Amino acid sequence: MALTETALIERFFRACGAQRADVSLGIGDDAALLSVPPGCELVATTDTLVAGVHFPIQSPAVSIGHRALAVNLSDIASMGARPAWALLALTLPRAEEAWLAEFAAGLGGLAREHRVALVGGDTTQGPLCVSVQLLGVVVAGGALRRAGAQPGDALFVSGTPGDAAAGLALEQARLEAPPEKRDYLRERFLLPTPRVALGERLREYASACIDVSDGLLGDAGKLARASGVAARLEFEALPVSQPLVEAVGDERARMLALTGGDDYELCFTVPASRLARLAAELPPRAWGYTRIGTVLVGEGAVVVRAGTVMEFSHSGYQHFT
Amino acid sequence: MALTETALIERFFRACGAQRADVSLGIGDDAALLSVPPGCELVATTDTLVAGVHFPIQSPAVSIGHRALAVNLSDIASMGARPAWALLALTLPRAEEAWLAEFAAGLGGLAREHRVALVGGDTTQGPLCVSVQLLGVVVAGGALRRAGAQPGDALFVSGTPGDAAAGLALEQARLEAPPEKRDYLRERFLLPTPRVALGERLREYASACIDVSDGLLGDAGKLARASGVAARLEFEALPVSQPLVEAVGDERARMLALTGGDDYELCFTVPASRLARLAAELPPRAWGYTRIGTVLVGEGAVVVRAGTVMEFSHSGYQHFT
Repeated sequence: MALTETALIERFFRACGAQRADVSLGIGDDAALLSVPPGCELVATTDTLVAGVHFPIQSPAVSIGHRALAVNLSDIASMGARPAWALLALTLPRAEEAWLAEFAAGLGGLAREHRVALVGGDTTQGPLCVSVQLLGVVVAGGALRRAGAQPGDALFVSGTPGDAAAGLALEQARLEAPPEKRDYLRERFLLPTPRVALGERLREYASACIDVSDGLLGDAGKLARASGVAARLEFEALPVSQPLVEAVGDERARMLALTGGDDYELCFTVPASRLARLAAELPPRAWGYTRIGTVLVGEGAVVVRAGTVMEFSHSGYQHFT
Repeated sequence: MALTETALIERFFRACGAQRADVSLGIGDDAALLSVPPGCELVATTDTLVAGVHFPIQSPAVSIGHRALAVNLSDIASMGARPAWALLALTLPRAEEAWLAEFAAGLGGLAREHRVALVGGDTTQGPLCVSVQLLGVVVAGGALRRAGAQPGDALFVSGTPGDAAAGLALEQARLEAPPEKRDYLRERFLLPTPRVALGERLREYASACIDVSDGLLGDAGKLARASGVAARLEFEALPVSQPLVEAVGDERARMLALTGGDDYELCFTVPASRLARLAAELPPRAWGYTRIGTVLVGEGAVVVRAGTVMEFSHSGYQHFT
């Protein structure tokens, strides 16, 4: 690389994230030294974005930086934890300064928004691949898990799933839409909003939680399996955005909400006994979540439409090919 | 992939590392939950191996798995910390069961040897690239750093640097050697030994420490710069292995010890006042380290041979092309 690794780190990454008092030693030594507050557990996750697999090759660098952190923030959020420190393993074909500046702006902006310090990493040469390891903290024993849902619990999802899948299809020219819808949907793919504040608050209410990254129906199924229960989703209750409905129609919008990927929303369950308090203390409109169904005895996730269970094939991401 | 990601994780990675009581939640949720002991700081590092850059494309999978963890263990060792938990971001062109079994054996064997639990990760499809994030613990305020060396301190290195660089050259057929030397040297590249026990013990003696991964001379220079001192290395004092000397001659062996990469040894400094205790409590032969020089007022690292400072160009890794 024209830029040495040391120069690259100094220039683009040393001041990229938030400054935190609990970082005794950040970027620049062989490892970082961090203080977990007393009474807290450490929460650790990693997610990788590979060029051409998790984002189109020509994606803006700001989006790649944003998404690399967002997908991990979403995992920390789903545990009800507070994000704190990130490490970045960045593999790049070459060190282009303009690209790096944009990438660091995307990652750093989101990091500072959530008070995440970038405390270390590794920069290597090779096909574009971004792995972020994100560490957070949660009061010991207080984390949300996929397991914990009980029959009778209500099932919720945050945001309007399906938007990101349509945004990706627009980005890849597999879908067309009027400019104003296009911009909204593309942004939902390029710059997803991890539900960090919601996740942390849900610790007081939810019995189980999962991050929706591979499609709501599949991820609700994972939550149900981990909890040993069944999830029943109501087709008519699915929250779909106006731009999505206008771009693809109501029917297809709901199908995308169920099976599209890259949403980074939270799917969670709340016992009936806590529903009134949830609604009063975290008003659904203000916090952006919607009840979509109920937890039952049984296994797996099903979608019910006008009283009838819908049949799904495992179509995955290929909605527009 | 023929094998689903879930099946792949269950089969090769769920039981790969050590079992630890401080893991409240390991592989299988959105993040892991871990307990840092009271009074300890968290130590976090990440290192990536890219196929064709950090190892030859045709490297045995057992070596790739071993090295992916070893390079991170070496970083934790250089902080004087104890490794505890790892996350694995594995990008693979395809899921070949035989390859995965070998890779997991290499990574898992070394993990269990050092009581490291594999608590999470991400498996993605793309060009072969392995990022490990390793977390360790150290008594608060007790970590070794690159900074801390003082003029008058003695300078040491563990093991016999240069072996791995020769091993890589043999692996790439840029060097030839008789079979019995070849096997030893290749193994030093393919299965390096991170100095975890030594690093942890050095907390009681060393003033500064760095992991030797990019060549002893360059890494001693980094330690010196971080400490605001100069490092003076004695050419004649450099520890070189018998197989290396027999393969390339004494002169070239010492040059490789200075500038070869991939050693994963520790370079550390010890104040004069602690040298007698170090020698008595950690006998150099038993612990495998050698005094190679002295810390002086000044900056950078120099090598002295027969009383004269040697001149070095920044030749990096290309010793045999």
